[in-house]
Amino acid sequence: MDHAALGTETDNTPFERKPEMTHTITAMMDSSPAEVAVDRQLLAECIQACLECAQTCTACADACLSEESVADLRHCIRTDLDCADICETTGRVLSRHTAPDVAILRAVLEACARACKSCGDECAQHAEMHEHCRICAEACRRCEEACNNLLAAL
Amino acid sequence: MDHAALGTETDNTPFERKPEMTHTITAMMDSSPAEVAVDRQLLAECIQACLECAQTCTACADACLSEESVADLRHCIRTDLDCADICETTGRVLSRHTAPDVAILRAVLEACARACKSCGDECAQHAEMHEHCRICAEACRRCEEACNNLLAAL
Amino acid sequence: MDHAALGTETDNTPFERKPEMTHTITAMMDSSPAEVAVDRQLLAECIQACLECAQTCTACADACLSEESVADLRHCIRTDLDCADICETTGRVLSRHTAPDVAILRAVLEACARACKSCGDECAQHAEMHEHCRICAEACRRCEEACNNLLAAL
Amino acid sequence: MDHAALGTETDNTPFERKPEMTHTITAMMDSSPAEVAVDRQLLAECIQACLECAQTCTACADACLSEESVADLRHCIRTDLDCADICETTGRVLSRHTAPDVAILRAVLEACARACKSCGDECAQHAEMHEHCRICAEACRRCEEACNNLLAAL
Repeated sequence: MDHAALGTETDNTPFERKPEMTHTITAMMDSSPAEVAVDRQLLAECIQACLECAQTCTACADACLSEESVADLRHCIRTDLDCADICETTGRVLSRHTAPDVAILRAVLEACARACKSCGDECAQHAEMHEHCRICAEACRRCEEACNNLLAAL
Repeated sequence: MDHAALGTETDNTPFERKPEMTHTITAMMDSSPAEVAVDRQLLAECIQACLECAQTCTACADACLSEESVADLRHCIRTDLDCADICETTGRVLSRHTAPDVAILRAVLEACARACKSCGDECAQHAEMHEHCRICAEACRRCEEACNNLLAAL
Repeated sequence: MDHAALGTETDNTPFERKPEMTHTITAMMDSSPAEVAVDRQLLAECIQACLECAQTCTACADACLSEESVADLRHCIRTDLDCADICETTGRVLSRHTAPDVAILRAVLEACARACKSCGDECAQHAEMHEHCRICAEACRRCEEACNNLLAAL
Repeated sequence: MDHAALGTETDNTPFERKPEMTHTITAMMDSSPAEVAVDRQLLAECIQACLECAQTCTACADACLSEESVADLRHCIRTDLDCADICETTGRVLSRHTAPDVAILRAVLEACARACKSCGDECAQHAEMHEHCRICAEACRRCEEACNNLLAAL
């Protein structure tokens, strides 16, 4: 990936000043008075993956909607919308540490891994034709893996 | 409060003009060109129960936050917030009929039934002390039941 | 509207047992220890209208996606998705009464009225062709009006 | 915590393999067939800022809830919850480029800037006492500025 285009290292764009998302996620976790019940790195990675996947699925649904071949992308749009909603909710639940309920956490992570699997499979079928589907399939794979890693550590 | 105050049947308040929520949910379902893959009445009931439970949990978390005994209601607030997010997402997923994915539907309904069970149990413990917890526990029970009924029909 | 079809009064469907949404919204409001800063009836109507409009817009976007003429409904789907998100957030903000911030409330209601105006106008153009757009346009009009009524009372 | 621990530059932690959030946001924008109606860098920064602020506000509300002094943090929790909802919705609306409606975009950005201003002001009052409020105040400031920058470019 071309970091320079995003303004890291060598230029003076505003991006340079900003902390990475994962840094902020971890800093918020570390400053909570609540005990964090699971592995902190796996948790931070999963929150990050959920937020990224939610944004990517929302954007992929919209990009599909603008394609000439929109009628062939109905399944993809539907799965993108479901996956975006589920990832967003999972990211929220994972961002809370007060009085955790492992049964809820487990059920939400399973739903999220399932949605990411379905959406990743669907987007992968259009990956050669549509770059947004290729990127979205990768975000879904990362999020599915992050959910499964966290589930294994619960 | 009594029902009459809300304008049913006998008076002239603005509520009278408005269609019931369940009517609108059903009318939207019936006007979709997509095939509805599950029992329509169970589906409409579940969407309605999810929306009601999401609103009630959001309101219960806020009411708990305003209680003098807020420090004793941390668990309740946390579970309310999770349950609200999960019910809202479930209501959205259920409102779509294009290209359904039964595995996603099942996983989301299981997560929703689980969150409603936990939140209903927690709120029930405060039901005698706090009317908002009593109402919220009932909304959670209805939503848990509606999710389980729909799961059984999938 | 045909009430009987939904199971009120004269038959034994499960709907009969359930409280109306507006009843639950009002009961939660009345049981909050927080002072409710605005007219309670206008507030309850606005929360109800937001929830209904959010669900209807989510369903209308999906119904449009399943139409043969989906390529002509891109604008409608886009506006439906934005309106659903904004109405849902507005319904959440309005469901909280603890430590209100009138500037936030006003800005959110203005955004919601604006989204409902745009979405209602767009759906109205397809109302004769698509029943889901006709129903959605009406839900948008009700929500726009409810937001404006509440704004006028702030 | 320090940046090195998150795997930038010099080590081999899993984070290193992952693209930055802003990179993914920009890549999705660039692969959309829809015309992007506003300055792409300002837009990508604003989406990023909204997602970060939403996550941070959700985590700050939860951290406040776990503080011994929760009764003194009611205002902060309430504003965090509103700000999280509004930022999330704004991030979604900004992630769509099909058939844009400038009036909706403007109204949503104004609501988001307003929520971030209120939440940033509130969190800043607790910044010396609570690290999570200090980090959250900064995320709110960045998001408020990003919304205002984008508003100025519309």
